[in-house]
Amino acid sequence: MNIIDIINKTKRAVPLEEEEIAYLVNGYTKGDIPDYQMSSWLMAVCLNGLTDHETVALTKAMRDSGDVLDLSCIDGITADKHSTGGVGDKTSLIVGPIAAACGVRVPKMSGRGLGHTGGTIDKLEAIKGYRTDLQFEEFAGIVNKAGFAIISQTGSICPADKKIYALRNASGTVDSIPLICASIMSKKLALNADIILLDVKCGSGAFMKTNLEARKLADLMERVGDAAGKKTRAIVTDMDSPLGSCVGNALEVKEAIEVLQGKIKGRLYNVCIELAANLLELSGKGTYGECKSMAEIAVSSGRALDVLRETIRLQGGDPAICDDVSLLPQARFKHEIRASRDVEIVAVNAEEMGMASLLLGAGRLDKDSEIDPTAGIVFDFEVGDKISMDAPLMTLYSTICSDFSEAAVRAYNAITFRDLTASALT
Amino acid sequence: MNIIDIINKTKRAVPLEEEEIAYLVNGYTKGDIPDYQMSSWLMAVCLNGLTDHETVALTKAMRDSGDVLDLSCIDGITADKHSTGGVGDKTSLIVGPIAAACGVRVPKMSGRGLGHTGGTIDKLEAIKGYRTDLQFEEFAGIVNKAGFAIISQTGSICPADKKIYALRNASGTVDSIPLICASIMSKKLALNADIILLDVKCGSGAFMKTNLEARKLADLMERVGDAAGKKTRAIVTDMDSPLGSCVGNALEVKEAIEVLQGKIKGRLYNVCIELAANLLELSGKGTYGECKSMAEIAVSSGRALDVLRETIRLQGGDPAICDDVSLLPQARFKHEIRASRDVEIVAVNAEEMGMASLLLGAGRLDKDSEIDPTAGIVFDFEVGDKISMDAPLMTLYSTICSDFSEAAVRAYNAITFRDLTASALT
Repeated sequence: MNIIDIINKTKRAVPLEEEEIAYLVNGYTKGDIPDYQMSSWLMAVCLNGLTDHETVALTKAMRDSGDVLDLSCIDGITADKHSTGGVGDKTSLIVGPIAAACGVRVPKMSGRGLGHTGGTIDKLEAIKGYRTDLQFEEFAGIVNKAGFAIISQTGSICPADKKIYALRNASGTVDSIPLICASIMSKKLALNADIILLDVKCGSGAFMKTNLEARKLADLMERVGDAAGKKTRAIVTDMDSPLGSCVGNALEVKEAIEVLQGKIKGRLYNVCIELAANLLELSGKGTYGECKSMAEIAVSSGRALDVLRETIRLQGGDPAICDDVSLLPQARFKHEIRASRDVEIVAVNAEEMGMASLLLGAGRLDKDSEIDPTAGIVFDFEVGDKISMDAPLMTLYSTICSDFSEAAVRAYNAITFRDLTASALT
Repeated sequence: MNIIDIINKTKRAVPLEEEEIAYLVNGYTKGDIPDYQMSSWLMAVCLNGLTDHETVALTKAMRDSGDVLDLSCIDGITADKHSTGGVGDKTSLIVGPIAAACGVRVPKMSGRGLGHTGGTIDKLEAIKGYRTDLQFEEFAGIVNKAGFAIISQTGSICPADKKIYALRNASGTVDSIPLICASIMSKKLALNADIILLDVKCGSGAFMKTNLEARKLADLMERVGDAAGKKTRAIVTDMDSPLGSCVGNALEVKEAIEVLQGKIKGRLYNVCIELAANLLELSGKGTYGECKSMAEIAVSSGRALDVLRETIRLQGGDPAICDDVSLLPQARFKHEIRASRDVEIVAVNAEEMGMASLLLGAGRLDKDSEIDPTAGIVFDFEVGDKISMDAPLMTLYSTICSDFSEAAVRAYNAITFRDLTASALT
């Protein structure tokens, strides 16, 4: 086998054999194949795509580049839930506890965020003392006790993905559905839960901007998961505007707790119930309708919050935050923005709102940036609301940044208003 | 400007601005842009192509990465002739002297070969004492005196091309017409002759396998040359079977001399006259018909041979080889292959014949290989000839290799025979 022949085949859209893909992934991971050959192959994939058979082979080769976990020490059916990410997406902190409260084991590995908002691990680290770097035995033990645990992904999981992902970022080869699929699914297959539920975010705040693209990725991930012997379902959910009313790490933990306390309904709650119901249905807990009721009761009964409280305690955080969210870290500075006239909120550009929260310190500009756990934005509206002049629109929070001018302008411009005064005049 | 944006534009087939292409070429040449970003861009070009405007900008940026020669010290009109290369292609050694004998100045820079046969410089270095590494002043002086000189390309010409070419070879991004065009034309524009005549070889022994592809490259090079202010013509000539009856460095010098001595007619002679006539016509020496007669007379009168003799003398070689080709280096070993039955020669795969001569030592497997100037193959037939059983087919020559078995099999298998005995029976 020869790397130039492999590159040439993909360039000519001739499908590669499984062994060729394994040779490529192993050679690149070991350093035998240099970056410039891999990036040229990745660009050929961006433009010519891969067949399903190739995508499955790529995903498996990436999975096998590192450890594949043995979850047999966890009692009962295990389920993994993954979101492709978006602004204000704290669903893992809500869906995991709900599913666990309904008898499914949810062992989860997450990443840190790069870009406009923090990843799930960054959110959890806003909880003082919370340890995300557990050894496998402790992780599995917590899942057995609490039903749910989230740790950060270890270096021994999918080293091929780590290396390929960094190269894609640096070589303009990110936007390829088979490559995105292989990156996500290799990590899911390495975690090795029985059930995989994928939440493909779609809209201005997500990587997939159109429903067509999102559905393509969702379908491909389902086919790859099934081909690898996992019960897999991928649903597409809206990420045109931020999910929920909080963006920022501690702020999102607070909002997740408030959803589990039964205090918040609306879009965020509905998405979480939908995700949990799908996960329970896939796990054989009943029909979709039955599973939906189970999920709702898990919240209303407080059992899902009990799961989160127990997980936080076992992972070293203060469980009292689940009953008093004011114990979470608080920002030193805040800045309120009010409506300058009577307006209706037509739309919110999630990506731009994410950039505003990044300016406040809630995300990372590069992988070595420090995150301000207290930074973020809280909205006083939902899309469609009418706001009177001088009524509060949103509040910006930060501890590391006291000058809010740039972030405020960016956050304000992220909103599309309809001027109610003007329209009344016409 | 940002390299990722540039890669993404080409990936999405959005044309780049001239400044973006200059940024890319300069950044890569200086080492600011790493190989893996350049190779990903090159793959995007292989698959999406470039517009003419982009190809012109790329060619000019590559030209300007190094020295652009000032040929004003050469009296009269200057013309450059370039072949895309093929097996047995010694036309530069014939066409240059013919054109010079007709009053055109032919300053030429050539490369060494990599792959199945030697380049023009390797052929000239088969002449003992011949110096190809002249300084510009001496080179220009010889062109003024003899009308023709060939030196090896200096490192100060198109360093961008050198670096990009090596990367293309190593990243599966060789076969792109705009990239091939930019590589060739940047060097032609850096040499900076008034006239550029391009011989695009087409067929099994050439890089361009089909007439359509060859004509595409030819047309593009004409447009780029014209856009850069040069009178440019590109003709497509056949390279399905080796050109002439000799393959190998000293053997091809011998054959070129024999053409200029008027001893060899046929396909090689005809191609050289066609090339020379085109070059003379472009230089304003008359109509195509008049130029063709001038070229023929330059050979028959011996004046073209006089040019070559003078050039060889001025570049340090022994001019006597022009009158006695047996003074050229001779192989230590030879091996004759005869027909095993009565056959007709239907076709010769030029590439395979090139590989056979490479096995004998006539080419380079990698850039550090030493070439055996005496190695090669001499054919006793032309395509279409009928050969009787036991009559000689071809002779293999080598000094560094005394075991001819592998090369003999490869050379024999490169020929497609029609069995005359068998066909007589049916």
